[in-house]
Amino acid sequence: MIRIAILGLGNVGTSVLNIIRNNKDIIYQKIGENFEIVGALVRDKSKHLKKEVYLASSFEEILSLKPDIIVELIGSVHPALEYIIKSLENNIPVVTANKEVLAKYPNEIFALADKKRVPIYFEAAVGGGIPIVRPLKVCLAANRIKEIMGILNGTTNYILTKLDEGFEFESALKQAQEKGYAEANPESDLSGMDALYKIAILSSVSFGILIDINELSSEGISNISLKDVLYARDLGYKIKLIARSCVKDNKYDIRVYPMLLPFSHPLASVSNNMNSILVKGDFVGSVMFYGQGAGGNPTASAVASDIMDISWHIRNSHTHRLSGNIKSKAIILKPNELFSRFYLRTIVKDNPGVLAKIAKVLADHNVSIKSMVQKTSDKGFAELVFILHQCNEQNFYKSIEDLKLVDSVKEIALTLRVYED
Amino acid sequence: MIRIAILGLGNVGTSVLNIIRNNKDIIYQKIGENFEIVGALVRDKSKHLKKEVYLASSFEEILSLKPDIIVELIGSVHPALEYIIKSLENNIPVVTANKEVLAKYPNEIFALADKKRVPIYFEAAVGGGIPIVRPLKVCLAANRIKEIMGILNGTTNYILTKLDEGFEFESALKQAQEKGYAEANPESDLSGMDALYKIAILSSVSFGILIDINELSSEGISNISLKDVLYARDLGYKIKLIARSCVKDNKYDIRVYPMLLPFSHPLASVSNNMNSILVKGDFVGSVMFYGQGAGGNPTASAVASDIMDISWHIRNSHTHRLSGNIKSKAIILKPNELFSRFYLRTIVKDNPGVLAKIAKVLADHNVSIKSMVQKTSDKGFAELVFILHQCNEQNFYKSIEDLKLVDSVKEIALTLRVYED
Repeated sequence: MIRIAILGLGNVGTSVLNIIRNNKDIIYQKIGENFEIVGALVRDKSKHLKKEVYLASSFEEILSLKPDIIVELIGSVHPALEYIIKSLENNIPVVTANKEVLAKYPNEIFALADKKRVPIYFEAAVGGGIPIVRPLKVCLAANRIKEIMGILNGTTNYILTKLDEGFEFESALKQAQEKGYAEANPESDLSGMDALYKIAILSSVSFGILIDINELSSEGISNISLKDVLYARDLGYKIKLIARSCVKDNKYDIRVYPMLLPFSHPLASVSNNMNSILVKGDFVGSVMFYGQGAGGNPTASAVASDIMDISWHIRNSHTHRLSGNIKSKAIILKPNELFSRFYLRTIVKDNPGVLAKIAKVLADHNVSIKSMVQKTSDKGFAELVFILHQCNEQNFYKSIEDLKLVDSVKEIALTLRVYED
Repeated sequence: MIRIAILGLGNVGTSVLNIIRNNKDIIYQKIGENFEIVGALVRDKSKHLKKEVYLASSFEEILSLKPDIIVELIGSVHPALEYIIKSLENNIPVVTANKEVLAKYPNEIFALADKKRVPIYFEAAVGGGIPIVRPLKVCLAANRIKEIMGILNGTTNYILTKLDEGFEFESALKQAQEKGYAEANPESDLSGMDALYKIAILSSVSFGILIDINELSSEGISNISLKDVLYARDLGYKIKLIARSCVKDNKYDIRVYPMLLPFSHPLASVSNNMNSILVKGDFVGSVMFYGQGAGGNPTASAVASDIMDISWHIRNSHTHRLSGNIKSKAIILKPNELFSRFYLRTIVKDNPGVLAKIAKVLADHNVSIKSMVQKTSDKGFAELVFILHQCNEQNFYKSIEDLKLVDSVKEIALTLRVYED
């Protein structure tokens, strides 16, 4: 009998109770043990009276129940961080679905786990039920990983899909909220932070690096309008919120940004609230993982499978694999070391010479134009959409600052990156 | 130092040498051990003199080198089976990429491995470098798996892609051979047997069942013509060679057949020599895995990662997980217990009344027509293509036998299954 305590009985916690109860036979068949849920820590007991589980009032009470494994499903940083640390200090293995705490406090958590040689498993923290953490750690272990590129946030992917279906941003966000995909305060999703936590975790696992999340940057989708999605489509692209991590000369580029992907790119066809992760390794080539990246049941699938894996090791008194295999602190590439292609939408005075002025400003910063199309013209103003050749990102942003000073340029409406193989 | 012996230095064996040598630093970083290739067993030493590895003449000589792990990359049944058995009997863990021997002799191999408590790992046997065996065994372990459906053979998928591009079958096969995707004798690929071995292995892993491969059936793609691919496209479908496994009331349907998939099905867009596997579980929902399903380097990625995983366990003197968790022999569903929709192409005499006759024969067997279209008419003969409603498979095949007796029916050109959710 493996004694399990659960911290938090929200959507995921309740699904974890269900999968452990419904699939008791499968669990026993595979690991030769039964699970007993010895207690759950909740804030408001009155909400959970029907769940047939002992409700604890404090983390100390959870510890007094002598669990073999603690499952942290509270989310956010506090008190999840403190509970995870206390569990590890008490030599109790942890399973968590909490991307934020792992991304923000990797050193505190992984160094402690490795020092105590107590496992912390977190397959559920990235991609919900999609197997991705263990495949990267174990199945692709022999590869030199070159790049990870994924759609890691279902809410923003749903909104972008709705834009692609012709809805305006506000309506798309409202639909996401009605479907339960977006929270009342959708800031962490829209800003790309949620996806940034996840790509930081995957990067740490794949490259064996310690990442300071504050050194990474994310761009969200709040500025993207229906118009941009339609213009991108005319040019042969879909706009997706991409989380991407690559390595160049032992320096890392780990970021989240909306990007124009050509229709033929495997991530371009990932729609609605689905997630997908493309991994490139030196021997395996490209492999892709796809599925529901959030939700109670898919996440519980990963949590319960992690519990089973840890239970197998506990039962056989195994040495636990080091959590992160972290060898060094990651050096993050700076804007002047990064190169990209860009999409640029501007509103300009509709008179001769304006294009020449823009081209000159761009050229002065070594940015050259691949294509330009005039989209609308109204009341003396025209909308110009540019696709730029690959350029240094710092140069590009300097050129944008200079463009804002050009008299004929009314507005730099949007800049987006464009995928280049 | 972990001592590794390799049986067979073909395409995959050579790539395994390369990945172990090129990625020595990554391997050491992750498991804290170096690999030493102590020897390789080859048939013709003169072909491998430049590979800088000790070449052994016999399996006994390999044993005398005292390897910690034996990597079987000979393929086919003999002598691979005998070598695997001798390795396990000598308590030496095995890594293999050999789907045929695992599918044909699961009982001999897995029962011995479990009895001796010696691990045999085979991530590379299905889907080349795509992580699928371990994700099914570990990451999705808590789910009740409902269905596995995949494109598991790159050669036939490449041929079907070429048909879709407008080439005739013979030309498509020739191109596959020129690309090195199809062997000189492509029978095992074309007949669906290669895919059948793989789906049998995945089914065994997912459902914990022992499968007698002789009880399973496969249909290949040799009868499919360019014409069928074009007709299917007109109807909104792609033809794919599908390996599929599902469970109903503890009985199993595990087969390989070409199938019409609607364009929107996630496997419909898998083209060229790529593989993809869709897994449905009760909690995780649908997850999909995609990548290069064959070739030296991708397969070596899986082999080397398996070696790393076993090495970790060896180093820490771990109890090895049972190979198959096999609980029972699988009961396979019979044709009279199976239901499907069908595509039916016939050549008939072009005269009034023939459709009525066909419809009557079908109706007599409880098979009803969903749609019919007349495709060509030439020299008194017409080509009729039917899509049938879901029906009992045994009834369908009886109706086909009866149709052949109808005077106006010149030929039953092809029958194919049609996907129904």
